Amino acid sequence: MPGRPSSKTRARILAVSDGDRRVRSDYLATEEPLEIRLVVGGSLQRASQGETATVAVTMRTPGADFELAAGFLYGEGVVAGREEVGRISYCTDPEVDAEQQYNIVNVGLAAAAMPDLHALERHFMTSSACGVCGKASLDALELRGCPVVAPGPPIDPAVLPRLPEALRRRQGLFESTGGLHAAGLFTAEGELVALREDVGRHNAVDKLVGWALLDGRLPLRDHLLMVSGRSSYEILQKALVAGIPVVCAVSAPSSLAVDLARRFGMTLVGFLRGQRFNVYAGEQRLGLPAS
Amino acid sequence: MPGRPSSKTRARILAVSDGDRRVRSDYLATEEPLEIRLVVGGSLQRASQGETATVAVTMRTPGADFELAAGFLYGEGVVAGREEVGRISYCTDPEVDAEQQYNIVNVGLAAAAMPDLHALERHFMTSSACGVCGKASLDALELRGCPVVAPGPPIDPAVLPRLPEALRRRQGLFESTGGLHAAGLFTAEGELVALREDVGRHNAVDKLVGWALLDGRLPLRDHLLMVSGRSSYEILQKALVAGIPVVCAVSAPSSLAVDLARRFGMTLVGFLRGQRFNVYAGEQRLGLPAS
Repeated sequence: MPGRPSSKTRARILAVSDGDRRVRSDYLATEEPLEIRLVVGGSLQRASQGETATVAVTMRTPGADFELAAGFLYGEGVVAGREEVGRISYCTDPEVDAEQQYNIVNVGLAAAAMPDLHALERHFMTSSACGVCGKASLDALELRGCPVVAPGPPIDPAVLPRLPEALRRRQGLFESTGGLHAAGLFTAEGELVALREDVGRHNAVDKLVGWALLDGRLPLRDHLLMVSGRSSYEILQKALVAGIPVVCAVSAPSSLAVDLARRFGMTLVGFLRGQRFNVYAGEQRLGLPAS
Repeated sequence: MPGRPSSKTRARILAVSDGDRRVRSDYLATEEPLEIRLVVGGSLQRASQGETATVAVTMRTPGADFELAAGFLYGEGVVAGREEVGRISYCTDPEVDAEQQYNIVNVGLAAAAMPDLHALERHFMTSSACGVCGKASLDALELRGCPVVAPGPPIDPAVLPRLPEALRRRQGLFESTGGLHAAGLFTAEGELVALREDVGRHNAVDKLVGWALLDGRLPLRDHLLMVSGRSSYEILQKALVAGIPVVCAVSAPSSLAVDLARRFGMTLVGFLRGQRFNVYAGEQRLGLPAS
């Protein structure tokens, strides 16, 4: 019987270097779909016995699946706190192949009734992308009640150059596969609190936020988020909902990521490499003069 | 009145280097939502007068929007050829803000009736991620009628190391923003045919395939696709549907990208840097011994 899928997958490949060819064994970042199902009315023991509805399917790297599901639902506003989340479990439906059961997560809701999924669809539409323009996307976040983030503690700019190296040192899967995004949560003093990896950068952030949710740590007002790649609207939106005041990235931000950070009082740092970085929003938190 | 949004956005930022702070003007890759609407029964002049339905909202970099919409619909199997696509236009609804009109694209369908959107939802589910496991995702592609790709012309492995530099040289937006993915279409001899950029790597490929569709060039049996980042299931799936036999990437592939390439007879190259590269599938097309 196939067990729980691994975060990395071994493959035989052909390595070519200056015309020299060599067959070798290599690790790939595993990519598999994850179906997130809501369950209401189930018992604690058998969440799957309640009414179920699929809310999302995402391509992800197996590992921290419960955190991914919880973080996704929190980011989308489906659950507002730990107390609204019941039992989370893999699918145990005997009609589903054992191999597939680990790609389906049931999230029990404390609510008595299933959320209106039609309303949920509209919600997803307006929250993740409104279909009209960036300004309206930001308006929609405000309508959802996302406040301007709290000032949080001042951050010593000297802390920032240490973050990428700290992230890299603990990024085990990337080391062996070269194929993953990482998201790290740091204290204001630059101590790594938690790190998650995934083939999808948004999933890595969902796993981190889901961990914090299930561990009763939200909102993350005193923390920094560092991502290994670029920063987009989606990353900033997830950080905002989790109350994280500072987002740093190794690469460039998009225009809408900068707009969101400025509108909601967040600090956004990009191109954080060595002793250099760019500040796109929220310089005051770093004790730097405004741009 | 705001005009068509630009692919890049100017912003004042604070650049910090070794403690030295300087305010400067920089370019960001523009990120805005694009809503893709299907229209049936409209006249050629006023596509928007027919029955409309929203099929997707994606965060993208403005530019090549009609190609993006066409390529997305082709990749998802909503349209199977140029002749099924009618007029494509921006939204001209006077009730929609001028700024927003350029973020909504109406795609006229030659069909007399709207596709069954409930069926379409199931279709999206099974095609982009089946919700069960990777093997089932690949099965679903087979069920959609995706054949094993044709052998196509043999590729001289000496062509490959030239592709990243050719891509980079023409990647104008990346040069000024540092924030975009690129997808390039090459001949078997390594000549760049077309290049598209986007904040989303899947969008860059959709733009390329949409261009080929609207230009009557599909399937792209004699071509190579080169992407600037990693290769995932989604990238390989789009290349497969467009009939592209060879996909090359600067970075790592995921496990499911490799599985898909092997199942459908595609050649997949990763870590293409300088004179080095890894071949994960389809070595025979490069005249190399199997891994």
